[in-house]
Amino acid sequence: MAAQKPSIPSGTRDFGPVQMIKRNYIFDTIRGEFRKFGYLPLETPSMEKLSTLLGKYGEEGDKLLFRILNSGDFLAKVPEDKLAERDSMSVSPIICEKGLRYDLTVPFARYVVQHRNEIVFPFKRYQIQPVWRADRPQKGRYREFYQCDVDVVGSKSLLYEVELIQIVESVFKKLGINVTLKINNRKILYGISEAIGHTDKMTDITVAIDKLEKIGFDKVAEELLSKGIDADGIRTLKPILELSGDNRVKIGILSEILSVSKTGMDGIKEVLSILDYVDSIGVDLDIELDLSLARGLNYYTGAIFEVKAKDFAIGSICGGGRYDDLTGIFGMPDTSGVGISFGADRIYDVMEGLELFPDVSKLSTKILFLNFDPASERESLKALRSLRNKGIPSEIYPDQAKIKKQMDYANKRNIPYVGMIGEDEIKAGMITVKNMENGMQTCIPAEEIVNYNFE
Amino acid sequence: MAAQKPSIPSGTRDFGPVQMIKRNYIFDTIRGEFRKFGYLPLETPSMEKLSTLLGKYGEEGDKLLFRILNSGDFLAKVPEDKLAERDSMSVSPIICEKGLRYDLTVPFARYVVQHRNEIVFPFKRYQIQPVWRADRPQKGRYREFYQCDVDVVGSKSLLYEVELIQIVESVFKKLGINVTLKINNRKILYGISEAIGHTDKMTDITVAIDKLEKIGFDKVAEELLSKGIDADGIRTLKPILELSGDNRVKIGILSEILSVSKTGMDGIKEVLSILDYVDSIGVDLDIELDLSLARGLNYYTGAIFEVKAKDFAIGSICGGGRYDDLTGIFGMPDTSGVGISFGADRIYDVMEGLELFPDVSKLSTKILFLNFDPASERESLKALRSLRNKGIPSEIYPDQAKIKKQMDYANKRNIPYVGMIGEDEIKAGMITVKNMENGMQTCIPAEEIVNYNFE
Repeated sequence: MAAQKPSIPSGTRDFGPVQMIKRNYIFDTIRGEFRKFGYLPLETPSMEKLSTLLGKYGEEGDKLLFRILNSGDFLAKVPEDKLAERDSMSVSPIICEKGLRYDLTVPFARYVVQHRNEIVFPFKRYQIQPVWRADRPQKGRYREFYQCDVDVVGSKSLLYEVELIQIVESVFKKLGINVTLKINNRKILYGISEAIGHTDKMTDITVAIDKLEKIGFDKVAEELLSKGIDADGIRTLKPILELSGDNRVKIGILSEILSVSKTGMDGIKEVLSILDYVDSIGVDLDIELDLSLARGLNYYTGAIFEVKAKDFAIGSICGGGRYDDLTGIFGMPDTSGVGISFGADRIYDVMEGLELFPDVSKLSTKILFLNFDPASERESLKALRSLRNKGIPSEIYPDQAKIKKQMDYANKRNIPYVGMIGEDEIKAGMITVKNMENGMQTCIPAEEIVNYNFE
Repeated sequence: MAAQKPSIPSGTRDFGPVQMIKRNYIFDTIRGEFRKFGYLPLETPSMEKLSTLLGKYGEEGDKLLFRILNSGDFLAKVPEDKLAERDSMSVSPIICEKGLRYDLTVPFARYVVQHRNEIVFPFKRYQIQPVWRADRPQKGRYREFYQCDVDVVGSKSLLYEVELIQIVESVFKKLGINVTLKINNRKILYGISEAIGHTDKMTDITVAIDKLEKIGFDKVAEELLSKGIDADGIRTLKPILELSGDNRVKIGILSEILSVSKTGMDGIKEVLSILDYVDSIGVDLDIELDLSLARGLNYYTGAIFEVKAKDFAIGSICGGGRYDDLTGIFGMPDTSGVGISFGADRIYDVMEGLELFPDVSKLSTKILFLNFDPASERESLKALRSLRNKGIPSEIYPDQAKIKKQMDYANKRNIPYVGMIGEDEIKAGMITVKNMENGMQTCIPAEEIVNYNFE
């Protein structure tokens, strides 16, 4: 067979050992916190029926689905005219029945509906799996990437919002990243639009609030006018746009303006209740009410969350909110849920940028035994057996190669210690341990190797 | 939107919480042992270029690849005549450039060649990821399943065969499964065919050895004759077919017959050397030289391994061997490697069948606090905070619902303990802990909850 120069599809990545150890450090930390709060693991298939996926992510999303070609004679069922017209758009649903999952939310909703009779509600689940999007690849945007989602469905209790906030607190504390949690509430945004008589302009208003800092009030007012919001509305909006200070100060001002909107006041009550819980528990996290926060506005119905790293410039590293109709699209209405998703790739970039990862060499093999001769090899294998029984990652060089070559291998692999059992050591029942960082050698009784402090 | 009755593609599976906890128990155990032996994690993309995958698994394998439809106007590039002829076979490579990975071996080979200049050889890697095959789904055969591979490339040292045997020993000891490790060597099989003058009939001979127990020597001889092996050859083969007893007895007999074959004698030397290592280390594992073992005969060049569960009837649960030309297909010849793969699905079935899984309730939430009223909720949230800080999975019922409903929830979730902080407990600074299995209640000082023995 001719030699091929191998490569991988654009937008995908290999994760070599060093990256994997770091990635696993993130996943293990996140998973560990999810578990502490009683969330249970779930995995769904990589491929879903296209009927499950299509129409759930908007027209643009449909285009970004990776579709899987039907097996066998896939062209057999395509009508003559569609083939003749080369109508890719209408041929694709005929030759593909399955697609790769685009996110973890729709498969979760599908799972809940499909297994509704076995599930105990409230159902607390976490899911850490890759998703695929046929996006144009670019820096920081991949066609295959992991999502780490944690959700609870089947309860409207605000205690779950509070629980998710505590998870945010503990995950980022564990990872060593200083963060701000921004919160908002879709009901407040609706209340604002109601207060100015434009419930249809919720998105425009949120975008305007977001732009205030950059372009100033006059420009924002201009923009709002052009969107059809009148001078009266803009006057009402002014104090909201200029809201600043402490969360409770903001809420005080908002309460006056939104007193005309029942929904708005409900939203304020929710935010207040969450803040009260968080204070009473003593959650150690910067929380900021941010009315410009609107992620997934069409989707969330209550709380909206977003997490930003304080010391590193990058988009949000975690976000989510409450949705009241996740499962309605699959015929199971009125199931309220709340969830957040951690962005593993961005968290990785933050940790790399701020040098927050623990030393990788400490997470893998601790000691490599040199292989001098058959007798040395035999004693090393014995030592290895007891080290491994104690859970200490350890190895032996596989051949009786030149010592320089063996040492080079330890260095290149970043193995922090080298074990040596030569003739003298065998006679004395000892092992010489060399610290590869500072060159120091220690000679210890062979049976003490399992108690050696490999730092 | 109209309600859809959701389901998943045939041959795929959802893994709910209980299955996931058990599956993770298997994966974590396997991963833990891989790490102890110094193997490093690797992950490759789910999709590879079809040029990487095609031709690597035989004609049948090519058909079983899941292909991913090109994005956009995929029909644009298809020649007129191929569309008109509805020639699915020749159209598919034009409309699909990517496929889902079929195993972890080819992507590993691709990775090694692509990253040869960064890799430190011998390169010890493990990889635990799903693979996809468009096989006809049936009991125990899925279109998406996990493989757990551990390989080392870039060394011919038999110490790695020995290391893999030790991994087999420790993984199955940890999981509690009694196993037999069958070993064979492709060089011995070649030697046998050479001894009877039919190096072209290696597969037929191996199949014949395999059938001996079932159909007896006469029938096997008949079959071999029909395959073109003459009476002389069958006479030479007889003592090999009837080989029994201890591994070293078998090797003694084999050595006489194979003395005419250099390759055969090399194979015997390898097996002997491996057995010597294993004995000297004291590996506690039933190892059986089995000449009928021929998995991947076209692929392996030295040792062949297979693991069978002793107490449960199922196919092999782990297998592998040495290959001398893994990376040749990608233009990097002479890179020897050896590896094994653990079959997570079958291991799951064995553990389920023999009831070897630890109690799932012990692996998830330990205690649920009942929610009596706002004061009880507040104190419970405090207790939860300290429990979670100590890493103990714990929850609170999210509403002040009827106590029966809250208790039901704990029962259905299999949560082993319930925490109660009522008026009396608050006054006394105590928590009442109820064991849900035996109904026993204990009252302890609130600050002692973190030291409670949740078994």
